[in-house]
This record gives sequence, structure tokens and C-alpha cells, in this order.
Amino acid sequence: MSQKVRIAVLGASGYTGADLVRLALTHPNIEIAALSANAKAGQAMADVWPHFAHVPLPGLVRAEEIDWSGIDAVFGCLPHAASAALLSTLAGVRIIDLSADFRLNDAKTYAEWYGNEHPAPELLPDAIYGLTEYAAELLPAARIVACPGCYPTAALLALLPLLESGLVGHERITINALSGVSGAGRSLKEANLFTEVAEAVHPYGIGRHRHMPEIEQELSKRANGAVTISFTPHLVPMNRGELETITVELMPGKSVVDLRAALGHRYAAAPFVHLLPEGKAPATRMVRGSNHCVMNVFEDRIPGRAIVIVAIDNLVKGSSGQAIQNMNLMFGLPETTGLLQAPLFP
Amino acid sequence: MSQKVRIAVLGASGYTGADLVRLALTHPNIEIAALSANAKAGQAMADVWPHFAHVPLPGLVRAEEIDWSGIDAVFGCLPHAASAALLSTLAGVRIIDLSADFRLNDAKTYAEWYGNEHPAPELLPDAIYGLTEYAAELLPAARIVACPGCYPTAALLALLPLLESGLVGHERITINALSGVSGAGRSLKEANLFTEVAEAVHPYGIGRHRHMPEIEQELSKRANGAVTISFTPHLVPMNRGELETITVELMPGKSVVDLRAALGHRYAAAPFVHLLPEGKAPATRMVRGSNHCVMNVFEDRIPGRAIVIVAIDNLVKGSSGQAIQNMNLMFGLPETTGLLQAPLFP
Amino acid sequence: MSQKVRIAVLGASGYTGADLVRLALTHPNIEIAALSANAKAGQAMADVWPHFAHVPLPGLVRAEEIDWSGIDAVFGCLPHAASAALLSTLAGVRIIDLSADFRLNDAKTYAEWYGNEHPAPELLPDAIYGLTEYAAELLPAARIVACPGCYPTAALLALLPLLESGLVGHERITINALSGVSGAGRSLKEANLFTEVAEAVHPYGIGRHRHMPEIEQELSKRANGAVTISFTPHLVPMNRGELETITVELMPGKSVVDLRAALGHRYAAAPFVHLLPEGKAPATRMVRGSNHCVMNVFEDRIPGRAIVIVAIDNLVKGSSGQAIQNMNLMFGLPETTGLLQAPLFP
Amino acid sequence: MSQKVRIAVLGASGYTGADLVRLALTHPNIEIAALSANAKAGQAMADVWPHFAHVPLPGLVRAEEIDWSGIDAVFGCLPHAASAALLSTLAGVRIIDLSADFRLNDAKTYAEWYGNEHPAPELLPDAIYGLTEYAAELLPAARIVACPGCYPTAALLALLPLLESGLVGHERITINALSGVSGAGRSLKEANLFTEVAEAVHPYGIGRHRHMPEIEQELSKRANGAVTISFTPHLVPMNRGELETITVELMPGKSVVDLRAALGHRYAAAPFVHLLPEGKAPATRMVRGSNHCVMNVFEDRIPGRAIVIVAIDNLVKGSSGQAIQNMNLMFGLPETTGLLQAPLFP
Repeated sequence: MSQKVRIAVLGASGYTGADLVRLALTHPNIEIAALSANAKAGQAMADVWPHFAHVPLPGLVRAEEIDWSGIDAVFGCLPHAASAALLSTLAGVRIIDLSADFRLNDAKTYAEWYGNEHPAPELLPDAIYGLTEYAAELLPAARIVACPGCYPTAALLALLPLLESGLVGHERITINALSGVSGAGRSLKEANLFTEVAEAVHPYGIGRHRHMPEIEQELSKRANGAVTISFTPHLVPMNRGELETITVELMPGKSVVDLRAALGHRYAAAPFVHLLPEGKAPATRMVRGSNHCVMNVFEDRIPGRAIVIVAIDNLVKGSSGQAIQNMNLMFGLPETTGLLQAPLFP
Repeated sequence: MSQKVRIAVLGASGYTGADLVRLALTHPNIEIAALSANAKAGQAMADVWPHFAHVPLPGLVRAEEIDWSGIDAVFGCLPHAASAALLSTLAGVRIIDLSADFRLNDAKTYAEWYGNEHPAPELLPDAIYGLTEYAAELLPAARIVACPGCYPTAALLALLPLLESGLVGHERITINALSGVSGAGRSLKEANLFTEVAEAVHPYGIGRHRHMPEIEQELSKRANGAVTISFTPHLVPMNRGELETITVELMPGKSVVDLRAALGHRYAAAPFVHLLPEGKAPATRMVRGSNHCVMNVFEDRIPGRAIVIVAIDNLVKGSSGQAIQNMNLMFGLPETTGLLQAPLFP
Repeated sequence: MSQKVRIAVLGASGYTGADLVRLALTHPNIEIAALSANAKAGQAMADVWPHFAHVPLPGLVRAEEIDWSGIDAVFGCLPHAASAALLSTLAGVRIIDLSADFRLNDAKTYAEWYGNEHPAPELLPDAIYGLTEYAAELLPAARIVACPGCYPTAALLALLPLLESGLVGHERITINALSGVSGAGRSLKEANLFTEVAEAVHPYGIGRHRHMPEIEQELSKRANGAVTISFTPHLVPMNRGELETITVELMPGKSVVDLRAALGHRYAAAPFVHLLPEGKAPATRMVRGSNHCVMNVFEDRIPGRAIVIVAIDNLVKGSSGQAIQNMNLMFGLPETTGLLQAPLFP
Repeated sequence: MSQKVRIAVLGASGYTGADLVRLALTHPNIEIAALSANAKAGQAMADVWPHFAHVPLPGLVRAEEIDWSGIDAVFGCLPHAASAALLSTLAGVRIIDLSADFRLNDAKTYAEWYGNEHPAPELLPDAIYGLTEYAAELLPAARIVACPGCYPTAALLALLPLLESGLVGHERITINALSGVSGAGRSLKEANLFTEVAEAVHPYGIGRHRHMPEIEQELSKRANGAVTISFTPHLVPMNRGELETITVELMPGKSVVDLRAALGHRYAAAPFVHLLPEGKAPATRMVRGSNHCVMNVFEDRIPGRAIVIVAIDNLVKGSSGQAIQNMNLMFGLPETTGLLQAPLFP
């Protein structure tokens, strides 16, 4: 690789693609070589994105127009199915995919939840699951990295250390999740109009959200046994942010103190994952616009249980920030390169 | 009583008091006789409330200035402790209290959760718990009605029929609640500034919210056995609205179908409580500004459990609307009098 | 007419149509006979509108399916051009049109600003401009009433008395307007997504908004001379509400006191238009969800000028509420019938 | 100076102070040496600010506890009067004041608008007005820099080139301004509660906002003649952002093309001030969280006038970002150092 990683972003007309570009712009080791968006090919980024009105950037092209020679890494910010279909045609470029296509190890499970056959099942064995804090050893050699979904990122960061340590049971893990509207993307749906969402809150995808099998797959791997979760997401009138309130059952003799100790130990050296001081509640405003994740554990009033709460910015640690964090480790850069912006508050 | 119920509102400078006045203004059988607000006594309502800028209303006075002769009912919209202290001095007027003072049957539990001795424990036996749909028979003769808290109103409407019918277990009832900011009142706290709340979400009062013992008390009464709940409220950037996502454990052989049947049956004739069609998710925008409550039941991915979701407007069915609904029944009026506004959307 | 006015609402799947239905539901003299929405014909209102989830209403039909016999009045809530095309085919029913089709007296001006030939220019002479406070005498006999646009409603209520009295000049009337997002309707445009609008503000339609010729037409009529205005609307992240800040030039010897006197006098008996006390600034929260309009006048720092500020709810006084206010007068009902809801705050 | 500028921030418990710290944290040449906040002295920044929950920072101290030896620059983020009173006691440290205390050249005008005698009138001659784009030559030698108010920053950037070039008249400059709520600071006022501000908009300080004399002072200096402005600010329900819509009168023979040319020329080399392409409307979402300013000019429908629109983030270019931009030039650093964050959208 050159001193700069030369990147292409596929799907730069979506919120995920745009936030990747935002972060890439001030990353000292990234050069943005190409930006694609088939439906808006030919337009300038400044025409598609208000916040890039004054930023010089490559124009949007169709994906097939990209000259891949000299490009080191491609970020896939396309919808599922379209992503793997396109990425599977590329050779010689390292792939960081933000779609769902390489997250599930099993093509059959994928077909069941996503409603289409997997476009490139032969690549699944090559893909690693890019929850950075658990993939650090695999990333330097990885050719394909599947970036986790936003809800799984938060849930797994909070739950994996507890399950790995055998502190909580596999059963009755109940995740109540709250998300900002940017998680729904920039596509035109009545449900995402300002007037439908503002001054209101509602659950959605109850019992059938596509992030469920992903969370279960990763929990089960490290829990040494199948884990089935309850997961209910809600849409909150804010642009960014994701907060999950999770109830778990304590193993006999274990307490909130043990859970806090396990999380504190696991993330002591993690630059972006933070156990808050005892009693301090996580809030999305602690992480807005940043790659940070905050978490904490509380006593439940029901004996033998605990409440684990975790917050991230869905577009950053839950998507584009983690993608760059992965790229950093893939290319031998310090994990935090280009990602140390402080959160924006208010 | 006269054709009109002559009312006094104590604490008309808070959001609860103001919403009571809003509803009373178009209630055909209410005459607003007096409005008190000690800190703002001497001011016009139009000076204290923007939306009453053009509405003729009695001026604000100190509570002790009110001439109680000829007043039929008093609505207590004062903070706890202050409310019972004042109301206990009144005779010959029927009391509808929106504070927490008459909700808990046990003065000791009250002292434990509210941090002060109960100001009028001798009145507790006279107070009925005014969850209207469960108090209809007691209201006509009641002298003191304790209106439920907003969170308890939603939780109890959803859970009572299920526990009464023996469809769900007493254990592991987990309530995740989302509330608009008006629930915090109009008092000056940094946490309630626009800039602290907008574009953000966070849990609060984890494991120690004062509505917990109230919910448990009422559930336990009708469940024939002690019920301990898990309850985690979250603050959402919206003015009004409350949504609770509740996981329950099904009794053997019971299913979501049974739960829906029980709720449908229980509220078939209730004008304000609505079981939504199968699969339709409750949302706060369905009830904004109105006295309605919507609910539904869904399969949980974890076998043997169900997800019950319920939404109200915290200031109306969760507070002032229910208070007027109670008044209607206390004074022999149709339950819906003055409360049939359609929700405001968008 | 019968005791109840039997109405049809064309375009009941838009925000304007829905707010009309909301108000009609509690109007004592309205019976909702038919609701049309071509694209959603066959659906229940409860499926199209969250806030009508629990309200019994006629199902949506195609406009041509409506049986017009026995219908007294039709409210046209369709887009321009479609509205006049359909309404012009109806006979024997009184028309209250909320589209732009009958607002401009001149078919040529209409074509110029709306980009299409007028579908029914022969009806223009029959239409009266339904700014209720200025149309009261014409409404009882009117067959077609063109309800004003939301921006014109606010601007005209504030400016007409000043121009009629010769207190302000015809030149250099500068209107800066702020509107909630519901003014943009429920159609799917990227610009109206929550994520595009929240936490942001921007002007739009600078120098070419279609409400400009409408404001100028009505001002010119009563000013006895051509009036050309400057008008810049801005989109504000709120659902409802419209506020206009207008600078005017005082005629020699005139002052803010004179302007306030003229407005106070003109609206002394108007139930919905209110001059606020001296120095009190209008705000949209004073009128949210209601048919009220608040206004006031202030000294400008530039000598010889004044600042006139006016606020309405764009969907109520700016649209559906005024339409019903017009219907009331057309059918001999008291002007305020069904429209006395207090504003919703917070 | 050392390679790093060692700074102290007075008033780090306000939004301005916090945003300065946010930007300083990733500035390569700043070392945060001390943070003061008298009312919260003794607390950690993490306790006072949610977004610094995971950031190591000096603890808050009382201003008098700061050891000034080795401190190169002090940022004053205190309220007016308190700021000058404290700063005037410091020697040997360069002062960048974000309060209003050193903005007005005339102590009498200051007293008139701010209601108190100026605490250090003897320092006024030493202070330069730090609108960076107009102060670049003075900054390297300046001891005291008065950072402009947020409204003046936007107004002056847009108007100064037009007045300097003699393109627009001195009379009838009308500024309508929209601001996010963070401009009101973190102090506890009922008017700034979420519930008072959300879903609403209103003007404030009509005809008496303290930024008026500041704008007039600076315009008059460069216009070679007294300029009196009309200025009406409005509060918009968003955290950050400021947009001004300004009408100006064109000098004979001048047009929008001339105005655009003047702005384009003046800011051709300015890294943070951008004239948008013809016809493109400025919006606050173009600059959120960044030090950028966007502007454009449009035809007014009233002949002989133009509409100038300008947007900034009130906390960044309108306050803390510009303060750091000034510091950069004071200490010989490139103007953009530490300030190239792309805006945050959505």
C-alpha cells in the first residue's frame, strides 16, 4: 500500500456512504479515489449532499465506470443483494462491506431473512465479521470484512463479555432498542417523513427485524451454545443515535458488580468502548457524531437479573466509523486514526 | 349538583393543570370557578400560558384565597406532599387528585419512595384508585379519587386483564417505557432544557422510579399474589406521548391469541381503550392530545413469551383527561363528556 | 339544509383532508358522508391514518364512486388542477375548495404560476375568496368558496386592515415566513424526510412561491392600487405552525399605536383573530391545533417603519379550520361551531 | 510560544466553553492547561458534560485558582461584565474573549445596551474586533481579541463586501434571523425548556436585541457612514444553526450579479466562507458542527432590491470555531488548523 489508502465508496448517495466520506475527509491516511451512486451518476456530491456544498470531492459515477487499478480498498454502502453482486466481481481490492450480505455465515439463513438467494455464497467463508473489538487479529489479513449492523454492534459489545465469562444465562436476553431515523436510510418512504416521525415514537419490525439472526449468530458463537433473543426496535424522533436497554438473567452467585468488572476488564484498552462510572446512565448525546460506545450495568428490581444499557451513534460506530476502524487495522494503521472527533453536543 | 360542575384547579401553572384547563374549556358541563398557583398568584393565565393568550379565564390566586362555597370538585395538580397537605383541609368538596399522594394505600411505602411522611394518612382509606376503566362502580360515591400516574395508567390497562385472566405469569414482567418531556413538568431543571433533550434519548430513574410501587400495588391486588416488575423509563425528544413495550411470560398452553382475546373482551365497551387489529403496532401519534389508549400483543421470538405494547398521551389519559373522565362518572355524566377530541396528527 | 350538513371530502389521504376530518368528527352539525382518495381507494381511514385507528369513518372510495344525492357540501382537498377538473363536474352541491384553483381571479395569472391551463375558467367568476373575516357577507349565498393558502391567510389578516386604513405604504412590504413541515403535504419527497429537516432550517421558493400572486391580488383589491410584495418562506423543523414577520413603511404621521388601533378595531368582534397586548410577541405555540390567529405590531429600529408579526396553525386557520369556518357561515351556523378547541400546548 | 499553545478556558461549563473544548481536543497545536467554572469548581468535565464522559480533561477549578505562568492564551466564555472584570486582571496572556465585553468600541453604548458600566473601559482601545476574515492583519499582534456575536458574524460576512463596494444602500437593511436554541446558553430559563420550544417558533428581542449596535458599529465603519439596521431574531427548535435572510436596496444600476461577484471575489481565498452556486439556497444543515459559512444572493420581487441569505453554526463560526480561527492567526498557525471537520449531516 501507498502511504495513503486509496478508497472507493460504492453507494455514496446514502447516509452511510455520506458519513463515510465525512470521516474520510479528515482521515490523514485516506485518499478518496472514486464515489459511485448509480441513480445519481453524473452529479456532484455537492448537489446530492448539503453538507458537502463547499468540499471538493470526486463526482458520482456508475460503479462500472470505476478504474480499480490503484484502489486499495472498497467500502460497500449499497443495499443488500446489490452489494454482494457487485463486490463479488472485484479482484485485487480489499472489501469492507457495510451491507448485510456477508454478515450471516449461512446462505440459507440469509435467504430466509432477506428474501433473496445470496448473490455470492462462495465468498462467505472468506468474510470475517468486523466487530472491530473482536476481530483485531483477523483484520490485517482479511480480504472481505462484513461490518456489523448498527443494532448488533451495540448489543454484541455489551453482551459478548458477559456471555464469554459465563456471567449471564443464554435464555431470556431481552433487548429493547431505540434508534434515530437515519437508520432507515434516505429512501422515500412515507414512514420516514418528518411529519410522520416528529413528536412521536413507535416500535417496528416486532419479532422480525433482520438484525435478530445476526445478533444470535455472534452471541451463540462465543457463548458456546445457542442463544435466542427477544428484540424490539423503536423509532425515535432524532437523526442519530442508538440506545439498547437489555435485561439479562444472572448466573447463580453473580451480581452487577461482576458484570461491571467483566466489561471494565474487557474494554480497559479499547479506545472507543467505555464502561461508565457506577450508576451513570448511558445516553446517545454522549456519543453523537463519534465512534464511541458507552455502556453500564444496573440492578434490576426483579431479583437475579441485571439491566445492561449501551449507546452508540448508529451511523458511526454502528456503521461508517467502525468500517474505517476496520480499515485502519487492515492496513496496519493505529486503530484510532481519523476517528478521534469528540461527540457533538448540543 | 348544578347542571354545571363548578371546579377549582390547584396548581394551574403546571403542564398538568394547564391541560386540565384546556379540556375543561370545551367540556359542556364544567364551569371553571377558580385557578390557583401560589408562585404566580396575581397573574393572568394568559401571562403564564401562551396558548391561553386569547381565552378568558379566572386569574391565578393563592389556594387559600379560593372561596370554596359553591365549588363542587377540586382538581389537585400540585406536587406530592403539597397536594395532600392542602386537600386534607377541604371539606364539602369532592377531590380529584393528580398528585401521587393518594395512590399508594400504605403510608409507609409512600414515605419510603417519596422521602417524606404522608401529610394525611387518615384520608388514605377514603381514597379510591381512579384508573377509570376499573373504578367505574366506585366513582359515583367517591369523595377522594387518586388519579394514577402516567406510566401506571398504560401499564395497568395493558396488564390487568392478562393477570386477572391468569394468562400470564406474575414473574418477569419487564416494562420498557418511553415518555415525552412534558412528563417532567415545567420546573427548571438543566436536564429538561431543549438543548439537553433534543436529538437524544436516555434512560432515567433506573430501578428506582416512583411509579414502580404503584404499578406493583395495583397488579398485585388483581393478580391475587405479589407481583414484582422490572421498569425502565426513557426520555424521548417529543412533548407528549408515552409508549410501553412489555414482555410477559405466558402460562402453559396460552398464546398471543388468548391475550388478544382477553384484552378485546375486557375493553369491548370501553370508549377510550382500543385493541388494535392483529399485527398493527401501537404508536404515540395515534393518541396525541386525546384521551385514547391503543394496545396490541405480539409473539416474542423467545418461546413462551409475548410482547404487549401500549400507548397513551401522558398528559391526557395519563393525567388530566383521565381526571375529567373520573369526574364525569363521579357526577353522573356520560364517561366521554368533553373528551372526544380526535388525536392531533401530524 | 338538514340539521346536519352532509359533507364529502375529496382527497382525504392528505394532511389537509385528514385535519378536516379531525375537526368534522366533533362538529355538531357535520355528517361525514363520503371520503375519497383515488390512490388509496378501498382502504379504511384507519389504515391510512394512525390517529383514526379507533374512529369509525366511511371507507375511502374513488371520487367517481360518490353518490352526490343528499350531499350538501364538498371539501376539495386535492392538488391544484385535479381539484377544479373534478369539482367543475359537480352540480347541486356547494363547493369549498382548499386547493389553489379558485383563488386567483385571472386564469392567465394562474397558468403563469401553476404551469397548467386553468381546468375550469368559466367557474372563476362564481368563486368567492374565502378569507372568512372578509367574506362573511358573501358566504351565505356562495356556491364556490376558494379557501386561501396558508401563507396568504396570515399575511392578509395582518395587512388588510392596515392598507384599508391607509396607514402603511404599498411599497416595500417584506414578508419573512416560517412554516412547519406539514405545509409540504404527505407526498414522498426527499426534502421532507425527517433526517433532512430535523435540526435544520432553510429558505425555499425564494422569489417564486405560488402564494405571492395570491397575496398581491387580495392586497391590491383593498389597497386601491397595485401592491408588490417581497416574500421569503422558510422550512422549520416542526409539524404545524406558521409565523410571518412583516416590515411595513408607515404613512407620514402614523405610528405603531395607530396600527395596533386599526387591528384591534377591525378584529374586536372576530372570534378567532386576536391582537395581543402591547409588546407581547406572537408565537406558533399560542395557536397549535386551533383555528386562532394572533398578531401584534412593534417599532422597527429603522425610523418610519413597523414590524407586524402574525401566527396561525397552517393546517387549521391556514386550511381546514378556515374551510369549516366558511362552511358554518355558508349554512347559517354560528361561525365558531365546532372550532373552539383550545390550542394544544405543550 | 511553544509548539503547542497552552490555553485556559474560563467558563467551561457553558455551551460555548464546551464547544471550544470539543474543537481544542483534536487541534494539533493546542494543549488544554486549565478549565474554570466557578459554580461547578471541583467537578470533572465528565460530570458536567455528557459528551466528555470518556475524555480525559483537566478538572474544573475556580478562575482564581489557575496558575497563569506558562499559559499562552485565555478564552473567555463567561457572561458579559464578568468576563471583562476577570480578564482585565490578567497580564502576560493573550486574550480571546467570546463575551460581548470588548465588541463595542464605546463604553457608553455598551452601558446603554448591556445595563451595566463597562468593567474595564481602559482596555477597549487595545481590543480588536475578531471577525477573522476582516482582522487577519491585526491578529498576529493583538493582545485582546473580541470575538463577534453569532448574529453579527453572519450578518457582517454577508453585508460588509456589499457595503464596501458601494453596491447596496445604507438604509433599509432588514435582517430576519433564525437561531437554534444553544444560542440561549445552558442557563435555567423556562423559555428554554424542551416543552416550550419544541414544535414551535417565535420571535424575541424585537427591536432591542444586543447584537444590533454591534452590527451597526461594524457596518458603519466600513460603509463610510452611519448604518441603521432592522433586526428580528427568531428561536427555532433545533440545537445549532443560524440563518439570516437579509433584504437590501441596490444602488442604481447594480444587480444580483454584481452582488454575487463582490462576494465571490472577496471570499475567493477564504477557507471557511463560501458563495454557493447561483440559485442554491443556504441551509443550516450545510454547516452543522463546522466552522463554515455559506451565502448566496437572490432577486427580490420588489424591484431595486436583493435578498442575501447566509448560514453558520452559531456555536462554531458564530462563537468557538471563530475564536480558534483567531487564535491560529494570533499564534502564526495556518488559519484552518484544527477546524476542517466536515459538517455533521444528518
